Amino acid sequence: MQILKFSDPGFDGAFRRIEQRAEDIPEGIEQTVKQIIADIRQRGDAALFELTARFDRLQLDAGSVEVSEAEIEAACAAVEPQAYADLKLAAERIAVYHRKQKQETWLSTDEDDLLVGQLVRPLDRVGIYVPGGKAAYPSSVLMNAVPAKVAGVGEVIMTVPMPDGVANPHVLTAARIAGVDRIFRVGGAQAVAALAYGTESVPRVDKITGPGNIYVATAKKLVFGQVDIDMIAGPSEILVINDGSGEAAHIAADLLSQAEHDELASAVLVTTCREMAAAVAAEVDRQLSELTREAIARSSIDNYGAIIVARDLDEAAAFSNRIAPEHLELAVADPFGLLPRIRHAGAIFMGHNTPEAAGDYLAGPNHTLPTGGTARFFSPLSLDDYVKKSSIVSFSRAGLERLGGAIERIATLEGLEAHAKSVSKRLEKKS
Amino acid sequence: MQILKFSDPGFDGAFRRIEQRAEDIPEGIEQTVKQIIADIRQRGDAALFELTARFDRLQLDAGSVEVSEAEIEAACAAVEPQAYADLKLAAERIAVYHRKQKQETWLSTDEDDLLVGQLVRPLDRVGIYVPGGKAAYPSSVLMNAVPAKVAGVGEVIMTVPMPDGVANPHVLTAARIAGVDRIFRVGGAQAVAALAYGTESVPRVDKITGPGNIYVATAKKLVFGQVDIDMIAGPSEILVINDGSGEAAHIAADLLSQAEHDELASAVLVTTCREMAAAVAAEVDRQLSELTREAIARSSIDNYGAIIVARDLDEAAAFSNRIAPEHLELAVADPFGLLPRIRHAGAIFMGHNTPEAAGDYLAGPNHTLPTGGTARFFSPLSLDDYVKKSSIVSFSRAGLERLGGAIERIATLEGLEAHAKSVSKRLEKKS
Repeated sequence: MQILKFSDPGFDGAFRRIEQRAEDIPEGIEQTVKQIIADIRQRGDAALFELTARFDRLQLDAGSVEVSEAEIEAACAAVEPQAYADLKLAAERIAVYHRKQKQETWLSTDEDDLLVGQLVRPLDRVGIYVPGGKAAYPSSVLMNAVPAKVAGVGEVIMTVPMPDGVANPHVLTAARIAGVDRIFRVGGAQAVAALAYGTESVPRVDKITGPGNIYVATAKKLVFGQVDIDMIAGPSEILVINDGSGEAAHIAADLLSQAEHDELASAVLVTTCREMAAAVAAEVDRQLSELTREAIARSSIDNYGAIIVARDLDEAAAFSNRIAPEHLELAVADPFGLLPRIRHAGAIFMGHNTPEAAGDYLAGPNHTLPTGGTARFFSPLSLDDYVKKSSIVSFSRAGLERLGGAIERIATLEGLEAHAKSVSKRLEKKS
Repeated sequence: MQILKFSDPGFDGAFRRIEQRAEDIPEGIEQTVKQIIADIRQRGDAALFELTARFDRLQLDAGSVEVSEAEIEAACAAVEPQAYADLKLAAERIAVYHRKQKQETWLSTDEDDLLVGQLVRPLDRVGIYVPGGKAAYPSSVLMNAVPAKVAGVGEVIMTVPMPDGVANPHVLTAARIAGVDRIFRVGGAQAVAALAYGTESVPRVDKITGPGNIYVATAKKLVFGQVDIDMIAGPSEILVINDGSGEAAHIAADLLSQAEHDELASAVLVTTCREMAAAVAAEVDRQLSELTREAIARSSIDNYGAIIVARDLDEAAAFSNRIAPEHLELAVADPFGLLPRIRHAGAIFMGHNTPEAAGDYLAGPNHTLPTGGTARFFSPLSLDDYVKKSSIVSFSRAGLERLGGAIERIATLEGLEAHAKSVSKRLEKKS
C-alpha cells in the first residue's frame, strides 16, 4: 500500500486520481436507458416483461410479476432462525434511530392576528430498488424500507430482479421484517421506469430510493422530477484518521472492509505516526491474502488506497474536510476531542471499538451515505427522505390590515399589480 | 373563463392539458447549456466574460465582475425609505419563520454501551441565482438568502445578470438586508457553471438555489451532483377551493394574481356553489381589463384557467390531492376543518383573509414551492436546504461485545468477509 506525505511533490495529482475515480455516465448508457424508459411509458407491462425476459432470462406475466405471499413465507421459513433474529435486531435498531429524526407538524401562535406553520406528512407511496444477483443485500432492504415505514409511508413497493428466477431468501425475509407491502421481481432501468410511471401491474410511486448499477443510477437520474429520488451514489470510500493509538491490525481490517466492496472502492488512512503507517501497510498485505474477495480488495487497495503520514491531527482534519469522506473513522485516543474539527462526512465512527461495519448493519444510522465529496452538501438517507412538508398561512382580518400595506407596496415595486390588488380589494371593503 | 364539472365527458382530457403544460427541455437547449458548462470549466473567467459580453452586452473583467461595496451602498441609498423598510420587515419575518425550522444536533444516550447521533451543520458556501431584467424580484433574494444566513451558511454568493450594465437597486438592497456576502454581475447557464465549478473570480459553492429561465434550470439540472441544487421549478399554479362563502371579487383577484406571472401559469377554482362559479367568472373578466399585465393574465386564464363546480368539499379535496397544487387557497368558512383532508400542497392559505400574495412576500414561509404536482414528494425551500447532516456512531468495548456477533453474522450472510473480520479481529483480542 503506497505511503505518502502531504508535502510529496506529486501528492495532489495522486490524490486527484482517487477523487475522480467515479466515471461520468457514458453517452451510450444514457441513450439505452432513455429508450427503456420510453418503452415502459408507452407499452407498460408488455415492455417490462420483454425486458425482463431479455436481461434476467425470466418469463413473467401479470400473474407472476408480483412475489406471492406464499413465496415470502417460504423464504422466511427457509432462513435460519439465527439469521432471522439478527435481521430483526438490525431492523429494530434502525427503527429506533430513525424515529429520533422525526420532525413534527407545528403551528406558531407568536402573533395575535395570524398563524403560520408547517405540516410534515409521510409520502403516499415509495419504491425501493433492491439489486439482485451477487449484490443482493438484506441490509439494503432494511436501510430503505424501515425508515419509510417509520415515517408512515402509505405503501412501500419493492422491486428486486431475480435473474433466472432465483430469489434471495434473506432479501425477502428482510422485506417481510421491514414491512414492505408489495414486491415485484423486476430490476434494472425497466424497474425504475415502472415505479416512476406505473404499468398495469406496478403502481406508480412518489419516490424511488435504493442502490443499483449504472443503468439503475442513470434511470433514477432521468426520472428525477417525475418522482423524487435519493442521492446518486458513486463508488464507496473510507478515511481513517489515526494518532498512533490503537492496533494496526484493526485499522487494516477496516480499510479492507471497504476495499472488498468493489474495485472502485477507496480506503485511505491518515496517521500522525510513521510507525503506524508502516505497520498498517504490512497488515493490509498480510490480511489481503486471507480474504475470499482478495482480488477485488487488492485491486481497490492498489489503485485507490493510500496511507498518508500527517504532521498532526490538524493537518489530518483539514485533509478530511477537503475530501468530505462517506465513511470517516476517528481511530484516535480522544475522538470526541477531534469531532468539532470535522466539518464534512457522511458518517463518523468514533474510536477504536467502532469499526465502520457496525454502521453498515445495526448501529442504527442509515448506511446510505453521500459519496465522492458530496457530504459537503448531501446528508445520509433519513426519515426526512420519506416525508414532505407544506407551509400554512392564516391571516385574520386584523393581520391583513396590519401587514397588507407592505404586501401591496412590495408587489407594486416588483411590477405585480394583480398581487397588490388581491390585498387592496380585501382592505377597501370595510372602508 | 371555462366552467367545468368533474362529470363532464371531456374533463380528464381538458385537465391533462393543464397538468402537462410544462415542457420537456428541448434537446437543443441541453446541448447549448452543456457547451457553456464545458467552456466555463475549461476556460474559467475568460469564458464567463465572453459569454456575458455576448448575452448581456456587458464587458467585464476581474476588476468589475464583482459588485462593489460602493455600488451596493449607492443602491440602498437610492431606494425609497418606505421600500427599504418594507423589504426589511419582510426579511425579518422570513427569518423568524425559518428559525423555527431549525434542527439541532443530537446524541442519544439510550444505551449504556454505545452512542449514536446526528450532527446538523450549515453548508460552507451557497450560491444564489437571481434573474435579471424584468423578472428581477427582490423578494426572491430574500427568500433564498435569508434562510441561508439563518442556517449559518459560511458565505452566501449571489449572481445576478445586469443586461447592458443596468442594475436593479431593489435587488441589491434586498441582498444587503439579507446579508449576502458577495455579488457577481453574471447570469444564465454561465453563472450556474461558474458557481458549480468556480472560476478565477467566482468561488465554487456547495449548493445553488434560486429561480431562472430554461437555460438556468437546465444548467442546474446538469450540475446536480457536482453541487446540490434546490428543486427544478416548473410553471406556477394556484388552486382555490371554495364552499360558496366569501366574495367573488377576492377569489377572482387571487386567480389573477397567479395568472399575471406568465402565460404558462395556471389558476383554477373548485367551488361547491354554482352561483359563485358564475360570479367569479364574471369578476375575472371584469378585473382582467383593469390590469397592466392584462395580455399575460388573459392568455394564462384562457389556456390554463378553469372554474370547476364540485358536488361537495370531499370531491374538491380529492381533486386537490390528485393535482398536488403549488399554492392552495382554502377559501371556505372553516378552513381548519378542511385542512386534514388535504394531503399534498406546497403552501396552504387559510380562509378569506389570506390571499396567496401574502405568502409571496412576508407571511414568513418560503415562496419557493414545488410545482406541477411535485408537492406529492417535494417540500418548500427551507432551512433544511442550507444544512447537511452527519451520523455519529460510538461503540464501547462492551457495546461491540454485545452486538458484534450479529454484525459478523449479517456480514457473513452478505458474503462480506472483511466486514466480519473487522469485528472479529477486535473481539478475539481479549480472549
